Amino acid sequence: MKLRRSERMVVISNYLINNPYQLTSLNTFATQYEAAKSSISEDIAIIKKAFEEAGIGLIDTLTGASGGVIFTPSIHLDEAKTIIEELRDRLSESDRILPGGYIYLSDLLSTPHILKNVGRIIANQFKDQKIDAVMTVATKGVPLANAVANVLNVPFVIVRRDLKITEGSTVSVNYVSGSSDRIEKMFLSKRSLQPNSRVLIVDDFLKGGGTISGMISLLKEFESELAGVAVFAENAQEQRERPFTYTSLLKVDSIDVANNQVQVEIGNIFD
Amino acid sequence: MKLRRSERMVVISNYLINNPYQLTSLNTFATQYEAAKSSISEDIAIIKKAFEEAGIGLIDTLTGASGGVIFTPSIHLDEAKTIIEELRDRLSESDRILPGGYIYLSDLLSTPHILKNVGRIIANQFKDQKIDAVMTVATKGVPLANAVANVLNVPFVIVRRDLKITEGSTVSVNYVSGSSDRIEKMFLSKRSLQPNSRVLIVDDFLKGGGTISGMISLLKEFESELAGVAVFAENAQEQRERPFTYTSLLKVDSIDVANNQVQVEIGNIFD
Repeated sequence: MKLRRSERMVVISNYLINNPYQLTSLNTFATQYEAAKSSISEDIAIIKKAFEEAGIGLIDTLTGASGGVIFTPSIHLDEAKTIIEELRDRLSESDRILPGGYIYLSDLLSTPHILKNVGRIIANQFKDQKIDAVMTVATKGVPLANAVANVLNVPFVIVRRDLKITEGSTVSVNYVSGSSDRIEKMFLSKRSLQPNSRVLIVDDFLKGGGTISGMISLLKEFESELAGVAVFAENAQEQRERPFTYTSLLKVDSIDVANNQVQVEIGNIFD
Repeated sequence: MKLRRSERMVVISNYLINNPYQLTSLNTFATQYEAAKSSISEDIAIIKKAFEEAGIGLIDTLTGASGGVIFTPSIHLDEAKTIIEELRDRLSESDRILPGGYIYLSDLLSTPHILKNVGRIIANQFKDQKIDAVMTVATKGVPLANAVANVLNVPFVIVRRDLKITEGSTVSVNYVSGSSDRIEKMFLSKRSLQPNSRVLIVDDFLKGGGTISGMISLLKEFESELAGVAVFAENAQEQRERPFTYTSLLKVDSIDVANNQVQVEIGNIFD
């Protein structure tokens, strides 16, 4: 496909955006768009400048025989702050309070543009680390894990609280369920995670931390390593000594069911 | 932010790719990038040509006071066919067979680049219809619904097979579970779907069709309308008279557990 320079830049930008963290040789583009490697190199220089100025991400060029370009998505601090402030305001809406002192989150975590932005913010925190997979627990964490995995361009693995025949052989661990203080089981399909993986754990809401501790003990069963923990929101009321460090986007300070008020502030992400 | 034309085109392309099905006025771009509206208009013409030639999608320009540009993602037939053929080959791998005649799919539906492509293919089938939401059932359908919703830029709603306190008030219906022929219940949070929505139902695997029929009856409870049904794979062995039409990407013809063989062909998507 032969394209004019301006068109070629649009198409190469689209490719890089959809293939983050993936090394692509300039020859691949040169062949595909019937252009000289030097022209592609100039295109990349312009795209790199535009991506950096607009806070889309970084483009690194590796020289040599096995060289090429690699796109690392990022986000400007200002943009991340604005997004999280808006989410704080949305989460503070009084009609989110559910009986029992829970907060309704599902609408936020099922809206593509919110998920994409949250995915960008969390992935950005871990962009300098080697991450092989994103792990979460079914069901509420799945869209969040999916969003982060999209940006990091790695698979996500879903831990389940029940056994499903369609998962094949599984490994299970016991964990203390925060909501009930009971011992429960969680399961992960044996084939879903390679040994020696570095894993980022994400979840929608951190209360007691039992679920995340459970996932960390699952990692050991898979001879894998924890790269980090990130949550959409944490409950400050249940602040206990937690056996892991984590990044939170939002912090719920109090839920006053009687007066229908929720106090939400920015989490520890910018600390 | 003032950018050179070539950089501006890269940044506007990125914006359109991340904001599909959304009308944006040329003035928004003109203000943001400190350029004349006529220059933006020329940029858009180049982006439009590049997007069409590369099969990224269509850009429509609406004139008038409330005008602007709107990007509709699409996919070339050839590209869609190649992707589905690759998936057919992956699904035919003999080590996917699980005891009981099930197939392990989770790895495919948790890999970002596969999910993105499947999302593009399904969304493309429904791109000329008004879709307000994508619906699926927990847990396995969630990444697929998320991927399709990302491309259509609409929220997705997750029907559950169990009651969760964090969902608030729910509506439930009975359905016939395909795997057991038992009557079971499925639940949807009252706030998750607006009345009068046109809904696209997606799921990972279609066997008897009981789950999808259940979701269709849920739509009635929410005074909403079915826009279509799309599944990643269908089981041809369980072909019954189904009370709905659907699009399938793949069709599993037979699973021979004894000889460790799976027969998979392309679904009805190109019929």
